[in-house]
Amino acid sequence: MLSRRDMLSGSIAAALAASPLRAAVSFDEKGKGFELVGPGGAIPLFVEPGDFAGVLRAARDLAADVERVTGTDAPLSPMPDQPRMVLIGTLGKSPTIDRLAATGKIDVAPIRGKWESYSLQTVRDPLPGVKEALVIVGSDKRGTIYGIYDLSQNIGVSPWYWWADVPVVKRDRVRISYGRYFQGEPAVRYRGIFLNNEAPCLSAWTAEKFGGMNADFYTKVFELLLRLRANYLWPAMWNNAFNEDDPKNGPLADEYGIVMGTSHHEPMNRAHKEWTSRRPGNGDWNYVTNRPAVQQFFREGARRSKDRELLVTVGMRGDGDVAMEGTGGIKSDVALLETIIADQRRILQEETGKRIEDIPQVWVLFTEVQKYYDAGLKVPDDVTLMFADDNVGYIRRLPTPQERATRTGGFGVYHHMDMNGGPYSYKWVNTNPFPKIWEQMNLALEYGANRIWISNIGDLKPLELPIEFFLAMAWNPKAVTKERIAEWTQLWAAREFGSTHAAEIASLVSRYAKYNAWRKPEQLRPETYSLQNFQEAERMVTLWQGLRKRAEAVNAALPAIYRAAYYQLVLHPIRGCCNLTELLVAAARNSWFAEQGRASTNQEAAEVKRLFGQAHQIRDSYNRDLSGGKWNHLMDQTYIGYFDWYQPTQDIPPPVSELDLNDVASFGVAVAGRTQAWPGFYLPPSLPTFDSLRGERNWIEVFPRGKRPIAAKVSASEPWIMLKDEAAFSTSAADRRYWVDIDWTKAPDGKSEGSITISQGDDATSVSVTVNAIKATAEQMRSAKGCWGSLSGPFSIPADAFDRKVPAGNVRWEAIPDYGRVEAAMSIFPVDAPSIADPAKAPRLDYPIFVGETGEWTFDLVTAPTLNVNPAHQLSLALWIDDGEPQIVSVFTPERRETEEFLGAAHDHDSRTDMRIMRFKAAIAQAGRHRLSIAMVDPTIVIESIIAYRDKLPDSYFGPPSIRIGEPTRS
Amino acid sequence: MLSRRDMLSGSIAAALAASPLRAAVSFDEKGKGFELVGPGGAIPLFVEPGDFAGVLRAARDLAADVERVTGTDAPLSPMPDQPRMVLIGTLGKSPTIDRLAATGKIDVAPIRGKWESYSLQTVRDPLPGVKEALVIVGSDKRGTIYGIYDLSQNIGVSPWYWWADVPVVKRDRVRISYGRYFQGEPAVRYRGIFLNNEAPCLSAWTAEKFGGMNADFYTKVFELLLRLRANYLWPAMWNNAFNEDDPKNGPLADEYGIVMGTSHHEPMNRAHKEWTSRRPGNGDWNYVTNRPAVQQFFREGARRSKDRELLVTVGMRGDGDVAMEGTGGIKSDVALLETIIADQRRILQEETGKRIEDIPQVWVLFTEVQKYYDAGLKVPDDVTLMFADDNVGYIRRLPTPQERATRTGGFGVYHHMDMNGGPYSYKWVNTNPFPKIWEQMNLALEYGANRIWISNIGDLKPLELPIEFFLAMAWNPKAVTKERIAEWTQLWAAREFGSTHAAEIASLVSRYAKYNAWRKPEQLRPETYSLQNFQEAERMVTLWQGLRKRAEAVNAALPAIYRAAYYQLVLHPIRGCCNLTELLVAAARNSWFAEQGRASTNQEAAEVKRLFGQAHQIRDSYNRDLSGGKWNHLMDQTYIGYFDWYQPTQDIPPPVSELDLNDVASFGVAVAGRTQAWPGFYLPPSLPTFDSLRGERNWIEVFPRGKRPIAAKVSASEPWIMLKDEAAFSTSAADRRYWVDIDWTKAPDGKSEGSITISQGDDATSVSVTVNAIKATAEQMRSAKGCWGSLSGPFSIPADAFDRKVPAGNVRWEAIPDYGRVEAAMSIFPVDAPSIADPAKAPRLDYPIFVGETGEWTFDLVTAPTLNVNPAHQLSLALWIDDGEPQIVSVFTPERRETEEFLGAAHDHDSRTDMRIMRFKAAIAQAGRHRLSIAMVDPTIVIESIIAYRDKLPDSYFGPPSIRIGEPTRS
Repeated sequence: MLSRRDMLSGSIAAALAASPLRAAVSFDEKGKGFELVGPGGAIPLFVEPGDFAGVLRAARDLAADVERVTGTDAPLSPMPDQPRMVLIGTLGKSPTIDRLAATGKIDVAPIRGKWESYSLQTVRDPLPGVKEALVIVGSDKRGTIYGIYDLSQNIGVSPWYWWADVPVVKRDRVRISYGRYFQGEPAVRYRGIFLNNEAPCLSAWTAEKFGGMNADFYTKVFELLLRLRANYLWPAMWNNAFNEDDPKNGPLADEYGIVMGTSHHEPMNRAHKEWTSRRPGNGDWNYVTNRPAVQQFFREGARRSKDRELLVTVGMRGDGDVAMEGTGGIKSDVALLETIIADQRRILQEETGKRIEDIPQVWVLFTEVQKYYDAGLKVPDDVTLMFADDNVGYIRRLPTPQERATRTGGFGVYHHMDMNGGPYSYKWVNTNPFPKIWEQMNLALEYGANRIWISNIGDLKPLELPIEFFLAMAWNPKAVTKERIAEWTQLWAAREFGSTHAAEIASLVSRYAKYNAWRKPEQLRPETYSLQNFQEAERMVTLWQGLRKRAEAVNAALPAIYRAAYYQLVLHPIRGCCNLTELLVAAARNSWFAEQGRASTNQEAAEVKRLFGQAHQIRDSYNRDLSGGKWNHLMDQTYIGYFDWYQPTQDIPPPVSELDLNDVASFGVAVAGRTQAWPGFYLPPSLPTFDSLRGERNWIEVFPRGKRPIAAKVSASEPWIMLKDEAAFSTSAADRRYWVDIDWTKAPDGKSEGSITISQGDDATSVSVTVNAIKATAEQMRSAKGCWGSLSGPFSIPADAFDRKVPAGNVRWEAIPDYGRVEAAMSIFPVDAPSIADPAKAPRLDYPIFVGETGEWTFDLVTAPTLNVNPAHQLSLALWIDDGEPQIVSVFTPERRETEEFLGAAHDHDSRTDMRIMRFKAAIAQAGRHRLSIAMVDPTIVIESIIAYRDKLPDSYFGPPSIRIGEPTRS
Repeated sequence: MLSRRDMLSGSIAAALAASPLRAAVSFDEKGKGFELVGPGGAIPLFVEPGDFAGVLRAARDLAADVERVTGTDAPLSPMPDQPRMVLIGTLGKSPTIDRLAATGKIDVAPIRGKWESYSLQTVRDPLPGVKEALVIVGSDKRGTIYGIYDLSQNIGVSPWYWWADVPVVKRDRVRISYGRYFQGEPAVRYRGIFLNNEAPCLSAWTAEKFGGMNADFYTKVFELLLRLRANYLWPAMWNNAFNEDDPKNGPLADEYGIVMGTSHHEPMNRAHKEWTSRRPGNGDWNYVTNRPAVQQFFREGARRSKDRELLVTVGMRGDGDVAMEGTGGIKSDVALLETIIADQRRILQEETGKRIEDIPQVWVLFTEVQKYYDAGLKVPDDVTLMFADDNVGYIRRLPTPQERATRTGGFGVYHHMDMNGGPYSYKWVNTNPFPKIWEQMNLALEYGANRIWISNIGDLKPLELPIEFFLAMAWNPKAVTKERIAEWTQLWAAREFGSTHAAEIASLVSRYAKYNAWRKPEQLRPETYSLQNFQEAERMVTLWQGLRKRAEAVNAALPAIYRAAYYQLVLHPIRGCCNLTELLVAAARNSWFAEQGRASTNQEAAEVKRLFGQAHQIRDSYNRDLSGGKWNHLMDQTYIGYFDWYQPTQDIPPPVSELDLNDVASFGVAVAGRTQAWPGFYLPPSLPTFDSLRGERNWIEVFPRGKRPIAAKVSASEPWIMLKDEAAFSTSAADRRYWVDIDWTKAPDGKSEGSITISQGDDATSVSVTVNAIKATAEQMRSAKGCWGSLSGPFSIPADAFDRKVPAGNVRWEAIPDYGRVEAAMSIFPVDAPSIADPAKAPRLDYPIFVGETGEWTFDLVTAPTLNVNPAHQLSLALWIDDGEPQIVSVFTPERRETEEFLGAAHDHDSRTDMRIMRFKAAIAQAGRHRLSIAMVDPTIVIESIIAYRDKLPDSYFGPPSIRIGEPTRS
């Protein structure tokens, strides 16, 4: 049963795809408008036979899509002579369409001469014998094709209908409101993806399903790209050669309308495999030692593709996507590269007979290549300069105004959503939350890198969501502003699964990608989250388990037709990631429990084995059960047990210990905040200080150490210490947790000390845990209310929890919702605002804080690990307390550029944690309420939160939870 | 059957114990001499009833010992009136003895007035009615006692007859050659042990066998100490109070003749438990806040023991063997300590009525206490100042000549052979090789710290050997010179097990202690030894397995009576340590094999479980089976799975992974020197370069990755590459190792490259491993012969492999045999030689080296981690090449003293590896033969080896093996 809201999915698709057809398509029985599908079935389509082959092909797809929707054929008519028709054609290529334009039956002024633009118009009596027509007209080949697929999507065929088994909802009627609908140019000229890191998944899947990466496979990719209004592709190149694996690949791409490129390290439209399978000359991929052979290789590439639409990669890297062998110095390296590019351009002209300015070329500043550019390498202005990210989605560099003014070839960005290499590999499931993509690609747009966008999307699946988001931004960024990301996600969910569960599904897919970006699954280790501090590991498990529960509930409620799509797009990654977190935390417990001598160590070992087996069940469900095995091998990727940057050959379960238990009934005690256990450690245990302003409770755990059950007695020394017995955070029910909380109505003001004693029967052994508590006075409580702070210990502040925001002209702090580790991060807009050296004149955020302890405080600003896209900047911020002196901290100083690798010494760490710490110090002389101010110096910094502490910060991945005083929350 | 050589054990014992009876005792049927045991049985003993009670007691032990030897009673005679007797007595305490001296029947001039001296003399007609006597006369109480036990040992009763179940060989005859035998004073006045870290072993064992640490237990300890000619004891103090646990303890110690002390942190002869069980005053162990109660506590201690022979510990540490709570600054801390010591001395005088100079007192500079002394704390000169080691056997400080000149109380050393605390704990088995003990205690002797030696020996067992060695050195260091350590060890083995296997047993016990000192068992981790480089892990396993095999062979060959002693003294630790090494290396293989995707990963996991179970069988054999359970609990100590300095509650097996294997027949390849495996890693594999000068072979391993067997083909590209198929270093026979060696007769001179290809059937996958080889020319070979070096890659030189040794006057380098990681280490003698600033004038060692590569070489001198016993020194050495400029490197510079903790920042690392690296750099401009010179600057450095390398040194624990060019060795 479809709900009323599901019937609106045509509009949903239109909004999602930033389509001009918004609100134009309806499926109602009755109503006005052009009936694409009426009581008599689908109406015929006409395309001039002389139009682009790709247009004719897309028209056939439309016919098939109409049948998918209605169950009835939309016949392709050989002539435009039926009473009611869809007329399709490209301006200047379809005499029929040109006639309609010439006679004013259709209005093509808004699109004529534009890049990839189109219009859909309903027309009465367009041609003799035709009473009514829907005309789809494109300004150029892809314009017409996009127009066709726009209609397809709006009548209910998801771009992912084949690639993600999204069902097509059957309709009896499809009606287009009468009118003229125009779609202008895309924001980014070349929008594409890079099929990369394609083993083990894509390679094995294409081998099994297509017999290789041949035309049968690639036409599936081309069609998807066009339905997503992309136009650019770097084909798979791991032991693959697009043009040679199947000679039909290249011509078919051109026919479909896909602009082919080769990856950043494969110049002149040739796969590197074409070289390695032949190794001409002396075999070296080296322009110094084997120049004639390399030149001949370039020449063949230029000749082969001279009639196709291409973006030619120029330049050269080393043998097999590694850095070029140095020639002895940066100066001679630069000179060599300049020679190479000049030679490549000469060859291109010689072989194509075209002017070089008419051959789109791109030079990619990947990894070490950027250093040649920084060292002054000159590339002709008509070459598009493509800046790369740092392999984990943060753009390293964007054009300066001077560069933009001179480079006619413009600028592009090479982006990653999947990586095999440094700083680490991530290849399993989607780890790219939309707000992170948005923030970086918005920089690209605003800084003028809008000629080419390409993203490395690995095996394509399971990155369906971020691929579409990336391409949607490239098409029309105005439709995907930061405030509308959530809406866009919900529209996506409604298009794929109907509206009923759309909000929930949108939340689920946003959540799992967000959690995965906190630390990519491949980078998770048993020790990542703290078992001792802030209940961190158990919070993470609870978070994932809650998400999985919600996802399972939707799965149970969804109509069966959606289940396959739901599994691959939503349920599988959530099940998989929840399982992984449970697995690693169980392994962490095993290791810690072994140190404590807990009898349940062995149960955790069994739990690790169970969850490791379950990981493979989840994988196998994807490979074997999903859609009858259609996607077999696409989940072959190993992801458990990375020990270096490259994937493990097989998943490696976290190692576990199993203890030999004695036949005794002895107990042990663990205490929040401490790694040791008692009896065993010589210094006595104590709990973290309880603080009435923060209201956090804490725990001790009591557990058996031998085979026999224990009967421990736990008692508190003071009436204000409250104890609550629950199951421990353990696989064993014999492990008990005692929540310790303070009855603040009974505790005296100021500092108090008590204890909790654990003992057993006649056993002389007992453990006494010290309980320290600090209670705010009524005066302190009043003063602190609404602040972020503590009487004792660290605290943290979400970046959007300011109580005052001060702009400087039109330069201001704005929230980026759902970003990073928080509900909303803060960044400066416009993103290309000039730097402001004086913090007093800069846009500012003020936070109310309360500290119980004086002295030097440290404020760790948790920011995104954005890089220095503007080389004139240092990524600086200012921070100060009250009216104190602002302290300015810079991420990229000239000194660091001298002494550190190009991404900074901390890049490895920061990219793993997906954050950067900017550390400020400030002395606070008086306890009580204060104002913490943060001011912009440079833009393009994204602040997520502030962690404040005076003494040592306990080890954890996230730091202390954010608690606003007077509004304690408890998870 | 006892061999002829066994019959000599009387002499053996005499030599071992540096006894004057050397060669005086025989067990022959016939011969001359005083018949202690003759055809009529044992002869009666007489001791004056008025002699010291301890002498009477020891005489009763002698009677019992005679019965142990002969099976017949040696009756104690009430009067000296039997025709043949043993007459025992103390000068000035035994009228009978005094009479014999006065009448010249015996000669006591050599011992009269001496400390703990004695003589044994055969006398004809000493007294009326006595025709012949053996007189045992002591200069003082312990002199007599030591004389008695010296006889006991020489007739075949080991000091360990009870403590280690050393059997007493039955004799029909015991005969002492006629003569006068004199023993003078010991080198060290107070020689003792500290029972410490006594849980879980000693506590549980004494509880089960004695009902606690009462007099029944302590008399066993006292007797052992006296038989070992020790005189000093710090009693167990972990929740123990010697004087209160059993009120008989104190008086009995005095009666036996044991000088009682209390540990370094327990002043005024009171156990800390006496304080904690009462907590008088406000309860604080604090001289600032609770002075009257603490003073009263001191006073009671002084009063209680005023009539006993004591060494009174003065000073004060914090509550429970931790640092004293600071008073706010080092100056006020020093002033407080001076007040405390002054008050303690006043109280001692008041309570004992003695002059303070007549009360031996000791102040121990343990850990942080030394800093007060360094800061100028003045302690009266009659107090013995006891310097401490660093808890792992290296003395931190020794007296300067000025200090020695003024301190009448002299100096002592507090030494460790067992530790619970920083830098790490070691409590399981013996890890104290004699040469290490010798080197440090020789420093103590030579620098004049000879008033007190005490060693922390944990639970006493299983440190029988180093305890006896330590006490033997303290008694007569001339009998245990560095050249005679091996002889001493063999004499020990002969005394305990007879001569037949003595050499082998001596080697076994020396080996296992030596290996254990390379890294103490508790500090071993799976990753300690390299699996990839220098075949290190497998060499270690082979080493231990070889030792175990030899130990088992001796066990099988030994007469049954020796088995119990042999198990506890020899076989148990060898079995245990071999098993531990096998266990950890199996765990390392499990982890590494998992990374490689080896199918045998799972067999290694099973192997880890098997070996962990076996560890507990070995432990249980000690506890339960040995001597009918006599030693139950003394092997309760956990030692596997240390994760911090303190012992784990239970042994924690190393964690292991088990892979889910696919049902395939795929192979993988591992290559010596590399952590990666192939297929899998993107860069191709290569073996470490083969070098004809070093002649080392290397290996690749080929293994299945799935469940099915593989059929890999391994072939070499060149005729000079030799392959040999053997079992891999793996638990699985399916894993194969191919030894790769070079046929140098076929390889061309200079650099060559070849490869080894691994493939399987029709499988397209193949792996090619590059083989690089360098062959020396005939000229190079000639030039290099006898050198240490290489054509390529690192090499190492044993310190004693010099070809020239140049002394400077009587200051010279000498070998310390069997020291550290090598067969002999080199150190400067005399150890208190003055420093020599100019290397040209200093004693020097020259080594012939050959290098194939020019550039900057690094020379890592592997030295013992000796500390700076002379505060005026910096521990400096000089190194240079040929006639180059000497480079001087200093370990303890004034700058480091400013910025680092007192033991140096590297102490933690150095004490774990039991070595220090002194790093020198030298440029070598020309390949070929050179001279490497090392010269003394300061004494007290012990050089073990030199590791030389130009590029990165491959990771390993020991560095490259030492190979002398032209004499390749292969293990």
